[in-house]
Amino acid sequence: MGGTRRLNMTRAGANLTLTTSRALVLDFVRSAGPISRVELATLTGLTPATMTNVMRQLLTDGLVVEVGRDLSTGGKPRVLLDINPTARFAVGIQLGADSLTYVVTNLGGAIVGRLRTRGAEDSPPVAVISRMAGRAKQLIEDLGIDGQAVIGVGLAAPGSMDLDKGVLLAPPTLGQWSEYPLRDELEAAIGLPVLLDNDGTTSAVGEFWGGDVPDASTMCAVYLGAGIGAGILIGGTVFRGASSNVGELGQMWMTAPHSGAAPDTLERVAGPAGVAAAVRRALDAGAESSLELGGTDPIADFTLIATAALLGDPVAVAAITHSAQDLAEAVLIAANLFDLDFVVLAGPSVAIAGSMYVEIVQKRLDEGFFAKRRHGIEVRLSTHATDAAAVGAAALVLQHQLAPRSFGS
Amino acid sequence: MGGTRRLNMTRAGANLTLTTSRALVLDFVRSAGPISRVELATLTGLTPATMTNVMRQLLTDGLVVEVGRDLSTGGKPRVLLDINPTARFAVGIQLGADSLTYVVTNLGGAIVGRLRTRGAEDSPPVAVISRMAGRAKQLIEDLGIDGQAVIGVGLAAPGSMDLDKGVLLAPPTLGQWSEYPLRDELEAAIGLPVLLDNDGTTSAVGEFWGGDVPDASTMCAVYLGAGIGAGILIGGTVFRGASSNVGELGQMWMTAPHSGAAPDTLERVAGPAGVAAAVRRALDAGAESSLELGGTDPIADFTLIATAALLGDPVAVAAITHSAQDLAEAVLIAANLFDLDFVVLAGPSVAIAGSMYVEIVQKRLDEGFFAKRRHGIEVRLSTHATDAAAVGAAALVLQHQLAPRSFGS
Repeated sequence: MGGTRRLNMTRAGANLTLTTSRALVLDFVRSAGPISRVELATLTGLTPATMTNVMRQLLTDGLVVEVGRDLSTGGKPRVLLDINPTARFAVGIQLGADSLTYVVTNLGGAIVGRLRTRGAEDSPPVAVISRMAGRAKQLIEDLGIDGQAVIGVGLAAPGSMDLDKGVLLAPPTLGQWSEYPLRDELEAAIGLPVLLDNDGTTSAVGEFWGGDVPDASTMCAVYLGAGIGAGILIGGTVFRGASSNVGELGQMWMTAPHSGAAPDTLERVAGPAGVAAAVRRALDAGAESSLELGGTDPIADFTLIATAALLGDPVAVAAITHSAQDLAEAVLIAANLFDLDFVVLAGPSVAIAGSMYVEIVQKRLDEGFFAKRRHGIEVRLSTHATDAAAVGAAALVLQHQLAPRSFGS
Repeated sequence: MGGTRRLNMTRAGANLTLTTSRALVLDFVRSAGPISRVELATLTGLTPATMTNVMRQLLTDGLVVEVGRDLSTGGKPRVLLDINPTARFAVGIQLGADSLTYVVTNLGGAIVGRLRTRGAEDSPPVAVISRMAGRAKQLIEDLGIDGQAVIGVGLAAPGSMDLDKGVLLAPPTLGQWSEYPLRDELEAAIGLPVLLDNDGTTSAVGEFWGGDVPDASTMCAVYLGAGIGAGILIGGTVFRGASSNVGELGQMWMTAPHSGAAPDTLERVAGPAGVAAAVRRALDAGAESSLELGGTDPIADFTLIATAALLGDPVAVAAITHSAQDLAEAVLIAANLFDLDFVVLAGPSVAIAGSMYVEIVQKRLDEGFFAKRRHGIEVRLSTHATDAAAVGAAALVLQHQLAPRSFGS
């Protein structure tokens, strides 16, 4: 699919999910630009008068600019409009025990600056918050971006959360952060509005805002980090369920707990730690391999294994294949429950051997998807891989503030 | 929860999903009536002028009637309005290989007539369609209902389907019906508009329209018949995914196919045939039991087993418990993916020992739901059990024609 911008006529029916005419027009310019006023009027169904007013506002605010002329109709050349990528910026931060990623993106969702640092580890939240605010502000300053143009901060984190309160709930790898007023403290420290969300959900929004997902798709973005989560987007709108704790793919057991077999979840068997443990068992059993694992950091070990798999090391290939097969079974279940037509794999764990994961997941869906006689499912890698959750967190801020959408429920 | 009608103030935010003011007002009267115009104006956010116009129309059409006065405010008594249940009727038909169920419901979704007959079995579709049309028309006539008041027919069927074409796609138990123009042929034979949908989806709509589901819930209705399917409702609106083939719970494998264990799906191990086979194995092995299975009809055998389980027969209790445990694992996965807060179990397989299923599923969700620190999930039996898919098919027609909703995507 690459970076092609899609102009999907069926989206006219999706208007109701965008809350204002301004949001609607801006979102079409973002996804379909460069585009003329006439085409926009057709797509949005707005009256010429409303379109004129909304466009005047967007041009005045600098969000949209005139980029050229369309001469193809033979008549009076039409002015082509597109978003002005440098009109606004957003910060995205991905909070993890093992690493912190900061990005600044422009209005189009493209990365203009990035910083990766050590993770929250066991530091007290108050110290990490202060560090996060300092690093983010420094990054904006180093990039020479006018602070007024930065509209907010998106914060991606793993596990279950209470978005009303802006807190994490018993996150497995971030024990000290349970119920800590994460969003409010970061907001106070950084002086910008902060939106907290799940790393799966932000990854999904990042793909969509970047323009690489068909607008009308039912899409699942799987985020593979230390854990495994997922976000669901329906026609560009985040599916939130009862409390925004959807897509807990990593919690899926791979054998029913009462079946007698050792119960284990997808996260534990197919995540970095599970893959590293499987390789260690194979090496201990004397399997032929070039691999030497450090053994203390499963993420570092997983990186070695993924690299060796690409080079054809048999133990590494077997371990990554098994991980991808487990993931494929979980994605198949999600596909049969949500009736998906688009799957994106994102996160650090698919940064290296992602192509192996994509191939195995695609093959399993092609074979096993229940509604395959009705339609296929496209699987592809995120355009951002390791940075997907942070880039998506920034995109969430842009979407929320400039083109808010909801199911209205 | 019983039949209490709920008045959920948060629904004002859900207005956008109802497509017209008329649909919006009717839906609030249905779910919150008896109710005054003043309360309706507050709930819907409509202007007094619009409210007056819409209500005049609904009263003229006979859909809403004045049912009394509210004297509680001390001032001028307010007229209380409610839907007129006998103003409109809909037919619901559930198509199965083993049985056909016909219901007629009134505007409130209550059953006013029912007929159960032998199933489609191996009869040619053309003969079954003709039989269905004849039986439905006879039922309406026998009930003395004015044909003009019957607004349409809902048809519930299992498996994957193409709702644009109105056909089933390779349904496992109804082989002859694959790609057969089911909807159009029935429409021609019966002379009424026909809506085709999945038995899981119709069951979900039936619960909602009947008023027994909190309006703002993220709800999954599991339909347990010969197969196992599910429908998802978000704030009263059907979740459709890419092609309305969502909720394929029965296709979920219970051990990953590449794990070495015998791969098997929820439907095969926990459905009637799986339960009957497990009991047969136990009896063949000489287990102590009062059960004597016929052995030719798994549905009939399952009914015997469920009844014996209620009476405490140990082999039957073990088999039903195991089936419910498997179902509970599958529902837990769905709950973690959709972030559910409401689960309804429906269909013939829970008509007898449904309380055992509810208890086991509820317990598993209480223990294992990932976002349980955020909110609980309520599990309960459908108010319609065996007839749930047919009643829901009729409700789907009522909702579609009188109070259409969509996510707009």
